[in-house]
Amino acid sequence: MLPTPRAERFPVNTPAASQIFTTVLSQGPLTRLEVARRAGLSAAAVTKAVRPLIEAGYLVEDADAQAPPALGRPANLVRVDGGRALFVGIKVTGDEIIGVLTDLCCRISVARHTSLTSRDLTAVLAAVADVVQELRIEADGFGAPVLGVGIAVSGDVDRGEGTVRYSPFLEWHDVPLAELAAVTTGLPVTVDNDVRALTVAEQWFGAGAGLSDFAVVTVGAGIGCGLVVHGRVVAGAHGVAGEIGHVTVDPSGPRCHCGNRGCVEAIAADAAILRRIRDATGVEVADTAEAVRLAHSGVAAAREAYARAGEAIGRGIATVANLLGPERVIISGEGLAAYDLFAEQIRDAFTAAAFGSAARCDVQTRPLTFEEWARGAAATAIQSFIRADT
Amino acid sequence: MLPTPRAERFPVNTPAASQIFTTVLSQGPLTRLEVARRAGLSAAAVTKAVRPLIEAGYLVEDADAQAPPALGRPANLVRVDGGRALFVGIKVTGDEIIGVLTDLCCRISVARHTSLTSRDLTAVLAAVADVVQELRIEADGFGAPVLGVGIAVSGDVDRGEGTVRYSPFLEWHDVPLAELAAVTTGLPVTVDNDVRALTVAEQWFGAGAGLSDFAVVTVGAGIGCGLVVHGRVVAGAHGVAGEIGHVTVDPSGPRCHCGNRGCVEAIAADAAILRRIRDATGVEVADTAEAVRLAHSGVAAAREAYARAGEAIGRGIATVANLLGPERVIISGEGLAAYDLFAEQIRDAFTAAAFGSAARCDVQTRPLTFEEWARGAAATAIQSFIRADT
Ligand SMILES: [Zn+2]
Ligand SMILES: [Zn+2]
Repeated sequence: MLPTPRAERFPVNTPAASQIFTTVLSQGPLTRLEVARRAGLSAAAVTKAVRPLIEAGYLVEDADAQAPPALGRPANLVRVDGGRALFVGIKVTGDEIIGVLTDLCCRISVARHTSLTSRDLTAVLAAVADVVQELRIEADGFGAPVLGVGIAVSGDVDRGEGTVRYSPFLEWHDVPLAELAAVTTGLPVTVDNDVRALTVAEQWFGAGAGLSDFAVVTVGAGIGCGLVVHGRVVAGAHGVAGEIGHVTVDPSGPRCHCGNRGCVEAIAADAAILRRIRDATGVEVADTAEAVRLAHSGVAAAREAYARAGEAIGRGIATVANLLGPERVIISGEGLAAYDLFAEQIRDAFTAAAFGSAARCDVQTRPLTFEEWARGAAATAIQSFIRADT
Repeated sequence: MLPTPRAERFPVNTPAASQIFTTVLSQGPLTRLEVARRAGLSAAAVTKAVRPLIEAGYLVEDADAQAPPALGRPANLVRVDGGRALFVGIKVTGDEIIGVLTDLCCRISVARHTSLTSRDLTAVLAAVADVVQELRIEADGFGAPVLGVGIAVSGDVDRGEGTVRYSPFLEWHDVPLAELAAVTTGLPVTVDNDVRALTVAEQWFGAGAGLSDFAVVTVGAGIGCGLVVHGRVVAGAHGVAGEIGHVTVDPSGPRCHCGNRGCVEAIAADAAILRRIRDATGVEVADTAEAVRLAHSGVAAAREAYARAGEAIGRGIATVANLLGPERVIISGEGLAAYDLFAEQIRDAFTAAAFGSAARCDVQTRPLTFEEWARGAAATAIQSFIRADT
């Protein structure tokens, strides 16, 4: 293992400072005045927070080259110095570890993929430590310290506690992953639900930028949802939130791993679609690629399985829209590969079940690679670094 | 009509000032230091906001009589001067107008009930104006100005626009109620969905006080839901939010007025329960009181209708818990009169459908009179008065 670096800390641990830094990070470069306006804070508060952040090198202030010179002294622009610090983001899937090294602006500089030979905690911890070590060796070339690791795992994750309470794909229960990975990597570790981590990156740099209320819905091996309400990702008082996969669509439908019947996930997750095609055709469909091929070749049972999945997803999205009224719902996940097979059903079911003006919600798709999910994990590490309360 | 008073305005129109005032209103009396801590603001920001509010008489600062004298100069406590201003809250039901006069602390001093002879806009507007005028005559005795009116209406209400977009009980579509009522009453008017208004009062003074994430679920003529996420009531980007009544419970269930089948409201609203008992027994059940009597006397179909309603409500609450993970769900509404008939089913269905630790949400009941709903409307008027952005 590499020697543990001196634990560097963000110089100002106030909610205002982290809000100001996040505003500059996601929307900068900005003038101080514009930072104050967008963060809803006084100019004095911005000055107070910006000064130590400039001194510590996290922010820089430059003359605005684009400002019209006729207006006298040009306004200076504040921006994040991306090269000041590095972070590692890790996405754990059922069979692979995807790691990225990002700068402080969450730009990916290096990515690493490692196969998982086992889903045992020991094996996953060792693979995570390996990927982190490889990325730290790469980091040496950038001349900036790695200040934190974010790990994104699907399932019921309590970020505050740093615990994976339940991960169906890894078959983990109550694993204190943040603490364990901090020991094996020698770095501060943030653990979060993978869809929530992706939602942070979407909020800062993606299709949620500038929106105070939006949702990310991911389709594929599971059906997940990250929610941003009043400008912040919803974590849930007890760590559970965004469980769109367990919205009931059909109480007499197929059994879900949660114990109920007819959840969105029991109808629309990859395995549920495969099972339905197998049951209807007797064909031992091997994987999603084969299921998609069958549907594209016109096999009615395969087309119907996807249609039903689309209807379930559309109803789930309508439930989110009816309860929260988001401005936008971003559909992503590896399940988008089959999008042409259920896009129409998603839209129709959403439109039918959306109540009143909730139907005005902008539902859009956005393909994102697993490296972008890992970037979401890096974003949570940056968030923890700049935040007082985690 | 009484002469319109000079439009008095809150002296500081900043987000910080309204947050500070709300903190003192709902949690005071508090020391300035404690206000700063709870509002997450600097002591300087509190001093800056408190000074003009004391000068204008909205806040007062007293020596803390309970502070131990040995500790030197006692800390002063800041509190709202309730007698400084009055507000009117109106709850409109299908057959009645309930109006309350409150002080600036939202304490009810007078209440008035007026029957509605018609649900026409003109008739409702006239009844509202009458109730407001009666309450303003009462207000003269308190020696403080009435500074605003809040009107709470069930259905799809856009508070920002002041519009009732759709109210099923009143059969209204796109009514600019805030503007019309401001003309007939001569006062600034805030219009909001009735459950959201009740939720504001619960957040400030009720079972939601001190919680950043909770839900109010109301059962009765309709099934409604007010959501507080990250400390603020969710309004929805397009005005729709909290539509728990249109969460699908059974896609082959009874038709709902929204056009879908098997919504919570189509199974658990008063009219749905009556219809189910009529269909099963052939008895022309006149009203909810009779339905409750039948169930209590052991009529199986009546008991079963309530049981099914409870199951639908429990599933709806579980959906809210799975998506948002609130700390508490407060069940209220006139439907609580039948609570013994479906309490068990609500709890069982909630427990079965709650995902993982979402089941740890504290589900409790809280009977609230229509006067308390009207108080919620007064709370929205106070909120508008102290807020810059409405
Ligand atoms: Zn489920
Ligand atoms: Zn409905």
